Amino acid sequence: MKDIQNQPDDRNIPIDRVGVKDLRYPIIVSDRANSLQHTVASINMFVSLPHHFRGTHMSRFIEILNEHHRDFHIDTVEKILYEMKERLHACEAHMEVQFPYFIEKHAPVSGAASLMEYQCTFHGTLRDATDFVLGVEVPVTTLCPCSKELSEQGAHNQRSLVTIRIRSRQLVWIEELTEIAESSASSPVYALLKREDEKSVTERAYDNPMFVEDMVREIARRLNDDDRITWYSVESENMESIHNHSAYASIEKWK
Amino acid sequence: MKDIQNQPDDRNIPIDRVGVKDLRYPIIVSDRANSLQHTVASINMFVSLPHHFRGTHMSRFIEILNEHHRDFHIDTVEKILYEMKERLHACEAHMEVQFPYFIEKHAPVSGAASLMEYQCTFHGTLRDATDFVLGVEVPVTTLCPCSKELSEQGAHNQRSLVTIRIRSRQLVWIEELTEIAESSASSPVYALLKREDEKSVTERAYDNPMFVEDMVREIARRLNDDDRITWYSVESENMESIHNHSAYASIEKWK
Amino acid sequence: MKDIQNQPDDRNIPIDRVGVKDLRYPIIVSDRANSLQHTVASINMFVSLPHHFRGTHMSRFIEILNEHHRDFHIDTVEKILYEMKERLHACEAHMEVQFPYFIEKHAPVSGAASLMEYQCTFHGTLRDATDFVLGVEVPVTTLCPCSKELSEQGAHNQRSLVTIRIRSRQLVWIEELTEIAESSASSPVYALLKREDEKSVTERAYDNPMFVEDMVREIARRLNDDDRITWYSVESENMESIHNHSAYASIEKWK
Amino acid sequence: MKDIQNQPDDRNIPIDRVGVKDLRYPIIVSDRANSLQHTVASINMFVSLPHHFRGTHMSRFIEILNEHHRDFHIDTVEKILYEMKERLHACEAHMEVQFPYFIEKHAPVSGAASLMEYQCTFHGTLRDATDFVLGVEVPVTTLCPCSKELSEQGAHNQRSLVTIRIRSRQLVWIEELTEIAESSASSPVYALLKREDEKSVTERAYDNPMFVEDMVREIARRLNDDDRITWYSVESENMESIHNHSAYASIEKWK
Repeated sequence: MKDIQNQPDDRNIPIDRVGVKDLRYPIIVSDRANSLQHTVASINMFVSLPHHFRGTHMSRFIEILNEHHRDFHIDTVEKILYEMKERLHACEAHMEVQFPYFIEKHAPVSGAASLMEYQCTFHGTLRDATDFVLGVEVPVTTLCPCSKELSEQGAHNQRSLVTIRIRSRQLVWIEELTEIAESSASSPVYALLKREDEKSVTERAYDNPMFVEDMVREIARRLNDDDRITWYSVESENMESIHNHSAYASIEKWK
Repeated sequence: MKDIQNQPDDRNIPIDRVGVKDLRYPIIVSDRANSLQHTVASINMFVSLPHHFRGTHMSRFIEILNEHHRDFHIDTVEKILYEMKERLHACEAHMEVQFPYFIEKHAPVSGAASLMEYQCTFHGTLRDATDFVLGVEVPVTTLCPCSKELSEQGAHNQRSLVTIRIRSRQLVWIEELTEIAESSASSPVYALLKREDEKSVTERAYDNPMFVEDMVREIARRLNDDDRITWYSVESENMESIHNHSAYASIEKWK
Repeated sequence: MKDIQNQPDDRNIPIDRVGVKDLRYPIIVSDRANSLQHTVASINMFVSLPHHFRGTHMSRFIEILNEHHRDFHIDTVEKILYEMKERLHACEAHMEVQFPYFIEKHAPVSGAASLMEYQCTFHGTLRDATDFVLGVEVPVTTLCPCSKELSEQGAHNQRSLVTIRIRSRQLVWIEELTEIAESSASSPVYALLKREDEKSVTERAYDNPMFVEDMVREIARRLNDDDRITWYSVESENMESIHNHSAYASIEKWK
Repeated sequence: MKDIQNQPDDRNIPIDRVGVKDLRYPIIVSDRANSLQHTVASINMFVSLPHHFRGTHMSRFIEILNEHHRDFHIDTVEKILYEMKERLHACEAHMEVQFPYFIEKHAPVSGAASLMEYQCTFHGTLRDATDFVLGVEVPVTTLCPCSKELSEQGAHNQRSLVTIRIRSRQLVWIEELTEIAESSASSPVYALLKREDEKSVTERAYDNPMFVEDMVREIARRLNDDDRITWYSVESENMESIHNHSAYASIEKWK
């Protein structure tokens, strides 16, 4: 059979990224508490394509993935990137993996256990060396300092979604990033709260008001203090309970 | 050219609905304040197909729509349904239209004006007679009565999304339904609030705590009292500020 | 602590459904090939609330779920519904579970194995007896008979999304429903195809043209012939390659 | 009333972006054919915040927008950016606007007119000077050259979504970018095609096979040739009719 993809192309235009997008795949990721966790990922895999080749070989991306999905660690992404680069004769390889990850949390007073979901991302790039970004989305509560100050009683509060992404010189656990976000908010959120817990998180949030600006700064401060981390981006979207739009803030820094 | 769609089908299976889905179209809707409002709709148009025809004529749906999109009122949907039934030789025609609709609101103290978006739906069906359902989604604030009662200070509150759908024997304005939802919540939400308004809505919500159950009941009570309305469905999804899931309640009633 | 939810309500309005929505949870489902499969679900749990109670107890839904998520079979949903009804003193309980489910498929010529994702739903209701609906979404290829007939060469084809939902008097496997949808389309779709497979699926689709109407009828015919099935709904959305909207057809039937 | 936002902050951490996100707003944009077009936008507005201020003033973003939404041109974004920078005392201002835009197209044989929707974006940044990026998403048809070459008859084809973004030294119309994308694909897509048109687009696509790589290169070639354009990014996502994932390619270039 003719290999159309290997035909030459004379437009002299290299392609930055070509590959497969939005592939859904079950994976198993490393978990600080239980060693392994089953989840379902959305995966993008791209390579660069030199100007003289007409096309890449899309099926090889899937073949490479098929060999590795059973234990999907940061190291696995690195192995896959090397194989992509080699088997697709590319100068550059990219892999983006997004997956829900669950951590057992205990309610603050009753201690009742429940599972919280965090959306996580691994983004890896291999040129000469690998570049690796870990991301996690953490839902939290924020309570508005201005509303508290102005009002006789009460203060508007809402669910906020914090996204932290880092580059690091050694392993940082997902659990460490969720902990930083949750302890920098007015209160963490939980899947299960009994009445005594609801009292506790309400009062904690009221005693701990946070603008979206305060929260991203507090998280940035902690990421600044962690010597393992070489780069970070932190953003928060507060789904305001008094508006139908969000308040937003972000900070990005190479350290 | 051969008309494949008109070929006979011998499987003896009628089709309930066949047509076009997720068509995007600019429309102009009637507006209580300004008489006309430009917006952009997502449109579904379906007819029934008797067992003996192989296919419908998809392009005719678009042709019919093209003749009518310039002034899109409840009456327009009815006209379109009659044309679909006739030109597609169908026993039954359905049209579903969803669009954002903007209403100018004034902040409660400063009176500052801003525009709030409400997602609206018109669903029409024509068999022997027309059946017509108007829907509107209204974002509001709810403040938890349990959290207020238990806590020394403060109470968790959040953005909630109320959906009201009605059948009526005479015209009910979108503006009447948004007003019912907003006045049944702990507080309306606004696009623009100055500091004095933020104080006002915070205190109003604190003085007016509402479970998701309370809010749908309060809305149902008002819809029960309106003699124009023959059927309603009301639901609310509260995007809890202390959880990462929603609290939900719904009531449906033929009067 | 005061139990605000148990306060009486004097509006005399019962609530059809109240509970938790969009809860994310890792579950393990039964799998015809491997006996068990880990996945991640979105879960809704609702009960009816009599007119004289002010509110339900939201945390109990999570507690019941926590006791059961480790082996999530159709029987588990039934057990959970009984517990919801009892522990929340309700006349009626509803549970809706949606999850991605993976089946290993083999490419038609090379036999290359890969995993295909299918979105599945379990919807259960318990009043006096349980009512149970199984749903599955199956992506397939459809090739237009009209385009093939009219054109000198080629025919437009596209990805289509078939949704089958059933009630049955005995167990029907997810795998049986995906097989019905895939063999009723112009061609199944696959995660991995080698060149010889791509030739095969292209030719198979060209030899097997299907309107959206043809496909839902063919699936309906097979569901009619299966005596285990007492009710079904089948719909397909064809994401037309020549339009930016979809062609759609649906059939629903009590047998 | 106390101005909490103006309080000092001693963490010494400046914030890159703070403001409002996902605000929905009706706007009127300039249109090459009709001079003005009404549509509905999703808007983000952010400023930078120096390390010594605790918070920005969220309501001012809305006030500035309120003064300008009635005629929303590239020049309007620039005016708004200047006002944001001044009224919020910021070093940097960002505005991101996304909106559906409709262009009347004529079917290739019958000439039948219909409206096609294109999602557009204006992203503006003001530091010392303004930086402005125009984006447009264009749905098209692509037909696989490999499938055509290998198969006796037919070839798989699908809807693809092309995204072009540009910086330019003078005005480039949205209509010019959609034209580049559509003429670089196997075929444009249309909202309305009669039978003779369906024959024409099917044959045109079959005669004009395009890998995702071919299409982004062809678009890049045309953007390279346009001297008004100083930077571009082009990407395409092909929603493969034989897979449940997409094929993807992208090129970005400063000229």
